[in-house]
Amino acid sequence: MRNQLSINRLAWKLLGELCEKQDFYRVNVEKTSLGTIIIDAGIEAEGGFQAGKIIAEICMGGCGKAELSHEGYGGITLPSISVYTDHPVIATLASQFAGWQIKDGDFFAIGSGPARALALKPRDMYERIGYKDYFEKAVIVLETEKPPPEKSIRLIAEECGVSPENLAVILTPTTSVAGATQISARVIETGIHKLNTLGLEPNTILHACGCAPIPPVHPEFKRAMARTNDAILYGGKAYYAVAYEDEEKLRKIVENAPSKASKDYGKPFIEIFKEANYDFYKIDPNLFAPAVVTINNVKTGNVFRAGEVNTETLRKSLGF
Amino acid sequence: MRNQLSINRLAWKLLGELCEKQDFYRVNVEKTSLGTIIIDAGIEAEGGFQAGKIIAEICMGGCGKAELSHEGYGGITLPSISVYTDHPVIATLASQFAGWQIKDGDFFAIGSGPARALALKPRDMYERIGYKDYFEKAVIVLETEKPPPEKSIRLIAEECGVSPENLAVILTPTTSVAGATQISARVIETGIHKLNTLGLEPNTILHACGCAPIPPVHPEFKRAMARTNDAILYGGKAYYAVAYEDEEKLRKIVENAPSKASKDYGKPFIEIFKEANYDFYKIDPNLFAPAVVTINNVKTGNVFRAGEVNTETLRKSLGF
Amino acid sequence: MRNQLSINRLAWKLLGELCEKQDFYRVNVEKTSLGTIIIDAGIEAEGGFQAGKIIAEICMGGCGKAELSHEGYGGITLPSISVYTDHPVIATLASQFAGWQIKDGDFFAIGSGPARALALKPRDMYERIGYKDYFEKAVIVLETEKPPPEKSIRLIAEECGVSPENLAVILTPTTSVAGATQISARVIETGIHKLNTLGLEPNTILHACGCAPIPPVHPEFKRAMARTNDAILYGGKAYYAVAYEDEEKLRKIVENAPSKASKDYGKPFIEIFKEANYDFYKIDPNLFAPAVVTINNVKTGNVFRAGEVNTETLRKSLGF
Repeated sequence: MRNQLSINRLAWKLLGELCEKQDFYRVNVEKTSLGTIIIDAGIEAEGGFQAGKIIAEICMGGCGKAELSHEGYGGITLPSISVYTDHPVIATLASQFAGWQIKDGDFFAIGSGPARALALKPRDMYERIGYKDYFEKAVIVLETEKPPPEKSIRLIAEECGVSPENLAVILTPTTSVAGATQISARVIETGIHKLNTLGLEPNTILHACGCAPIPPVHPEFKRAMARTNDAILYGGKAYYAVAYEDEEKLRKIVENAPSKASKDYGKPFIEIFKEANYDFYKIDPNLFAPAVVTINNVKTGNVFRAGEVNTETLRKSLGF
Repeated sequence: MRNQLSINRLAWKLLGELCEKQDFYRVNVEKTSLGTIIIDAGIEAEGGFQAGKIIAEICMGGCGKAELSHEGYGGITLPSISVYTDHPVIATLASQFAGWQIKDGDFFAIGSGPARALALKPRDMYERIGYKDYFEKAVIVLETEKPPPEKSIRLIAEECGVSPENLAVILTPTTSVAGATQISARVIETGIHKLNTLGLEPNTILHACGCAPIPPVHPEFKRAMARTNDAILYGGKAYYAVAYEDEEKLRKIVENAPSKASKDYGKPFIEIFKEANYDFYKIDPNLFAPAVVTINNVKTGNVFRAGEVNTETLRKSLGF
Repeated sequence: MRNQLSINRLAWKLLGELCEKQDFYRVNVEKTSLGTIIIDAGIEAEGGFQAGKIIAEICMGGCGKAELSHEGYGGITLPSISVYTDHPVIATLASQFAGWQIKDGDFFAIGSGPARALALKPRDMYERIGYKDYFEKAVIVLETEKPPPEKSIRLIAEECGVSPENLAVILTPTTSVAGATQISARVIETGIHKLNTLGLEPNTILHACGCAPIPPVHPEFKRAMARTNDAILYGGKAYYAVAYEDEEKLRKIVENAPSKASKDYGKPFIEIFKEANYDFYKIDPNLFAPAVVTINNVKTGNVFRAGEVNTETLRKSLGF
């Protein structure tokens, strides 16, 4: 795949905007003793919708766009986020996908964003998609409620092959408005990940767009996380243009692509999670997908569509 | 409240864009003999949607974003404006709220925008919200159909503590497209003002967004003004994230927040106004609110919602 | 008409953005031996939604804005494009309208964009609207599946009165995502052209906005073209603010403005085209119009509206 895009370079540019206008974005920007830039977008700082939007774009490695809007869901209107990318695999699998677990003692956070494409986390994914970034700076987004310890920061820098002062770490708790916003912006990514597990070769996906509601935030992590899941599972719409040869296979993949194809579909995620004794591994992984998946096969012009927005479950989950 | 934002500084930057591209925005930019910048966005100049959008952002002191869109309202589609701010109190009460009456002989105009936060109009509001701007330049937006006399300009500058050549005055008649656009962009502000009168402490409001139709313009001031009111009263949707302790009180506040809670609700504003003998003070002040108010209490995760879009009255008012 | 806007100057600026970020936009930028800039946005290059969006703005001569969104059409959601302009006649008739046929041997392409306003193609249209551009650089958009021969490029430059190295040619096949996107962005233009043929003096149109779905692409030109037509005919919504004296005449014009006023209305365009033996001149020209046309007469405040979105035909045409 000919692609000159450096997602860390593009993300670093957006990071400059975020840091320069930290009062506007209500984020706190600090440097650690090692020189690493730490951006708090919802722990001590208040963050917000605008921080969530730009963090979503950073998380897509600067090769996707995010836009806030208002969308109707069965009688209610919710702030929503739309995403558009003409580099769907790089923006999502190579960057936005939450594929790097950062652990150190009792610190745990899931890492996403372009830094992953320097550290190759996970390596097999980068091999499959044939992309690797080369840049001397790295940006990582951590879904966490506390700042990472210095040891973790040092480790992230090392794994990325950058010096600590060339690393930027953005912290977004799931319980914050910025956190909820940037998670809803993962609607395309959630769909691509699901399509990939169903056997759709990622590099056949040429363009993508999607939209999901931004759920009202909740102060308890578990409930906040459940709402962000439901925003995508019951309210998310993803649209892909793919170049696919075997159309019968494509038809079957799309049938199984939306959340509705899962046996666990239908209840608010908090209930599903409870019934699984709060053990993620007991939940059907097929559940994690947008409510609606639409695919336009550019080889034939045909369109495949499955799933539907489930406003009833969405309202219930989001507290309406 | 820690806040380093200077809303006049942020607005002045947007003003630069407006002046630099005056042909694109169809505004006339002139300097008075005192050096004050006068921007006509709809008197002699034609103005338009784009002028209305950037004036809306200027009017929110550069700490809110406005986006044009198309929204459906019961079978009709209208150009609409969405607003988003993570500084809801500063963007609206400290800036966008039309709280400064400029009078001089037979000249009368309502002033809004960041200049108010230098002149502290009205002072008690600034005391309550704990914000004051310090900047050597000031931007004011006047809803008026004629330019202000030199005496008024001099007075505005004096009250702001800036020299006349550091004052910019934007003129937007209610009868113009730019005027209608920037008034519809007051949907969040209208809701915050109402919530405030119902006893909700403004500084508990952390984030806000909203959307309202841009009404078709009318050449008669009274009818134009009536339509801009109806756009918000019957078509406006506002969403707030607040941090609130007393949830029972919050529930009651939200119940009374939308326009529907008013006894005058239901008819096009022009009829209500007529029945009040065109005397604003005879109209129930509770009427002035968005059609729908949704509040997410970030302390509990709960969501409160009241009101509904009234497409029938909206269509009637807007001439459909 | 006082208007200082140079649409080629404005478009050239946007062109700079497109060329500078060619990897982001997935376009190929090359120079011919004559120095002409050729931008492939969908032939060898992949292009995409973002390329389509910026090409739409270039095609409107930089005096209109385009925004991507997601809109619902009777149960399905489609990526859509909204356009806004406060210079509707210049943005559309003087620029975006596909009014220049480029022929050379077996090469044929329809040209649109600001270059037309230098070459005055067609001359009578520019006389009617009273606009002409003066700029030493020219941008043309060609709907084509192959690059133009050198002879055609030289001819375009000559007709524009610019040297070949000051000409930029953007190539967008109708079968590409960028092509489909920039065609759907012609919803305002399609409406203005129709209104013009119905006798509405173009310069009475002061402001315009509109929205249309971006159809799923199809690899066969005929079917791709049919879908882009249907996107506007059955899904396009256009809104105009006009200053019109004869309101009875305006009412009649609007009644006949939407696609529904045509005897050919109702079937997917591919069927209409087939019944016409694939001869465009046998199709009722009244068909080419948005699904919905709404006009706000700023002289009276009245609103006229005709037509409706036809989701059934739209779904059928677009492959749902």
